[in-house]
Amino acid sequence: MYPIALITDFGEKDWFVPVMKAVICSVNPGAHIIDVTHQIAPQNTTEAAFVLWNAARQFPMKTVFVAVVDPAVGSQRMIIAAETSRHIYLAPSNGVLDMALSDDKVIRSVAVENKKYFLKMVSRTFHGRDIFAPVAAYLSKGLDLSELGSAIKFSGSKSFFVEASTRGGYAGSVIYIDRFGNLITNLKAESGAKGSVAILGKHLPLAGTYCDVARGKLLAYVGSSGLLEIAVRDGNAQKKLHGTYGMKVKVKIV
Amino acid sequence: MYPIALITDFGEKDWFVPVMKAVICSVNPGAHIIDVTHQIAPQNTTEAAFVLWNAARQFPMKTVFVAVVDPAVGSQRMIIAAETSRHIYLAPSNGVLDMALSDDKVIRSVAVENKKYFLKMVSRTFHGRDIFAPVAAYLSKGLDLSELGSAIKFSGSKSFFVEASTRGGYAGSVIYIDRFGNLITNLKAESGAKGSVAILGKHLPLAGTYCDVARGKLLAYVGSSGLLEIAVRDGNAQKKLHGTYGMKVKVKIV
Amino acid sequence: MYPIALITDFGEKDWFVPVMKAVICSVNPGAHIIDVTHQIAPQNTTEAAFVLWNAARQFPMKTVFVAVVDPAVGSQRMIIAAETSRHIYLAPSNGVLDMALSDDKVIRSVAVENKKYFLKMVSRTFHGRDIFAPVAAYLSKGLDLSELGSAIKFSGSKSFFVEASTRGGYAGSVIYIDRFGNLITNLKAESGAKGSVAILGKHLPLAGTYCDVARGKLLAYVGSSGLLEIAVRDGNAQKKLHGTYGMKVKVKIV
Repeated sequence: MYPIALITDFGEKDWFVPVMKAVICSVNPGAHIIDVTHQIAPQNTTEAAFVLWNAARQFPMKTVFVAVVDPAVGSQRMIIAAETSRHIYLAPSNGVLDMALSDDKVIRSVAVENKKYFLKMVSRTFHGRDIFAPVAAYLSKGLDLSELGSAIKFSGSKSFFVEASTRGGYAGSVIYIDRFGNLITNLKAESGAKGSVAILGKHLPLAGTYCDVARGKLLAYVGSSGLLEIAVRDGNAQKKLHGTYGMKVKVKIV
Repeated sequence: MYPIALITDFGEKDWFVPVMKAVICSVNPGAHIIDVTHQIAPQNTTEAAFVLWNAARQFPMKTVFVAVVDPAVGSQRMIIAAETSRHIYLAPSNGVLDMALSDDKVIRSVAVENKKYFLKMVSRTFHGRDIFAPVAAYLSKGLDLSELGSAIKFSGSKSFFVEASTRGGYAGSVIYIDRFGNLITNLKAESGAKGSVAILGKHLPLAGTYCDVARGKLLAYVGSSGLLEIAVRDGNAQKKLHGTYGMKVKVKIV
Repeated sequence: MYPIALITDFGEKDWFVPVMKAVICSVNPGAHIIDVTHQIAPQNTTEAAFVLWNAARQFPMKTVFVAVVDPAVGSQRMIIAAETSRHIYLAPSNGVLDMALSDDKVIRSVAVENKKYFLKMVSRTFHGRDIFAPVAAYLSKGLDLSELGSAIKFSGSKSFFVEASTRGGYAGSVIYIDRFGNLITNLKAESGAKGSVAILGKHLPLAGTYCDVARGKLLAYVGSSGLLEIAVRDGNAQKKLHGTYGMKVKVKIV
């Protein structure tokens, strides 16, 4: 029995998430469901991909990750189930898995087609309830992927992250902004690295943690995901810098 | 042992919901609690009624639904427990159950009065903790409704939804706006129905799903609750149309 | 086996909370985790202290409360574990425990230092994952506090609340504003007390519950935490009064 981890853009006001859970429990009454997040911005597959990448690295082996950020629901887009050395993933074929699979080897993947594992009535606009939930429940009970549909070639082969080494400067960008307004970049570095980071013409020395600078001051540091981040101590870097996704950042490790 | 499903307007910042859960678990340590939502707009019983209707139709049989949207807490308003062919409901007598009970036959209902099943100290402003939580916990353990108080006549007899048939045009209105800004009407139609929908002088053909129109375009479709909805593909119809609760909609099924 | 109750300012969009839960479950797979709140305003230890006080009074005995509102993470601030007559607390030494411990006697307390109970790699910015989560999981399994580090003197000796008795007037202030915009003060009073409350030059009679005044009118009452509160019936006192933390309030019990 595997745990099921949910990532959606459904929010927490409407009935979408609890109904998914009710369907999961109707198939697998003992299911262990973990809410990763339901607060992904509507239709924002990039945001979902980054949160999924973070969760997938830190969750126990053989979690069934279900990512329902699915603006093309009901169209001809595929639903994919992929098994890797670490987890099982279930998501639309819209890029939401690319980041997680970029550092997790795909063992096999299938197009989810077998209606035997769907609800009897499948709507055109709520596959979270009608397909993802029951299929996830069967997977959590150990269903073999081959039961779901025909094998397909699928891998998240793109490289999203840039290793910042000791040689020269590396350029990257802001790929996620968290609740605290911290700007997270795609630049990887070792914890404890020394050097400097440039953003919007400002040069910030690499610090270790927030308290290494005065209150209200900007700092750069290697965050808990192993990526360079920019923050304001006891403040909000997004607000201070009018930070946006895609904003350019340079790093020089010394 | 029945699961307990919670619908409140308590939000998720304060201690109201976890304290309710702590009380439930003190009476029934093995309680299975499902959060439907705690994000109902403060005091908005209509919103709660619609979310409850949706959840009740899709949840497993014999769930104990507890709806605490209760602006008249501590006054002479009644608390009602009702058993239907599908579920058990516990809520104030303020209309929050009307929609769910409009298509679920009430077998019996009682006024919740027996202090034996309340907390010892009952405040005037937090019956969620002092009455609803412990009573729900006893109900989840199988307590017979007759233990709670005297029988009353109670049914949600009003009809909230209009069947849009093939004959002529039907007028309805927006009764709920979801997280995505989709405008949900009280007009029922079959999935796959053909026809057109008019709102604010715009005429929209009935589509099957979002991708049937171009990005940013309005569409009407039969949503996953069996009701007509109006949306913007990859966008937000509430924002685009300045949508509000009660906005008039016409449909013609052909 | 004790339940674990989480209070953080991590929000519910990012991966911080589910990753903490994944770590807890890796140490104690059967852990019973209760979310008190993750919506504390970023870095707001006072808000966290008040929510924790409320939850701690109403939760079952021997809950492991974990409060991660930790702006000085990674600095020389201590992490404290404290056992009281009621609960076990785990939090940074930044005041977040002061209110809860002001009416709960500390039996013993330790500085959390023993790396044996941390994750192998400890980041400088996410001790929620690397220290609090695994230590909480061990505590939930019954680990003795003395295993965590050396004993320290620690108590929340400050008095946060003022008893409003029958003699004379008492002055206090707004210490918390809840989801409904109710202004909660630090003035304690008995349920059913009579008298009047002054705020911003307005004099409000003490009422019993919201419905004791007309819709849209201000009222004062003894709330469900035993503190004086100011509300608007079917409305929002914070908006009506431009309420802020620290706003002065006077009460006269007769």
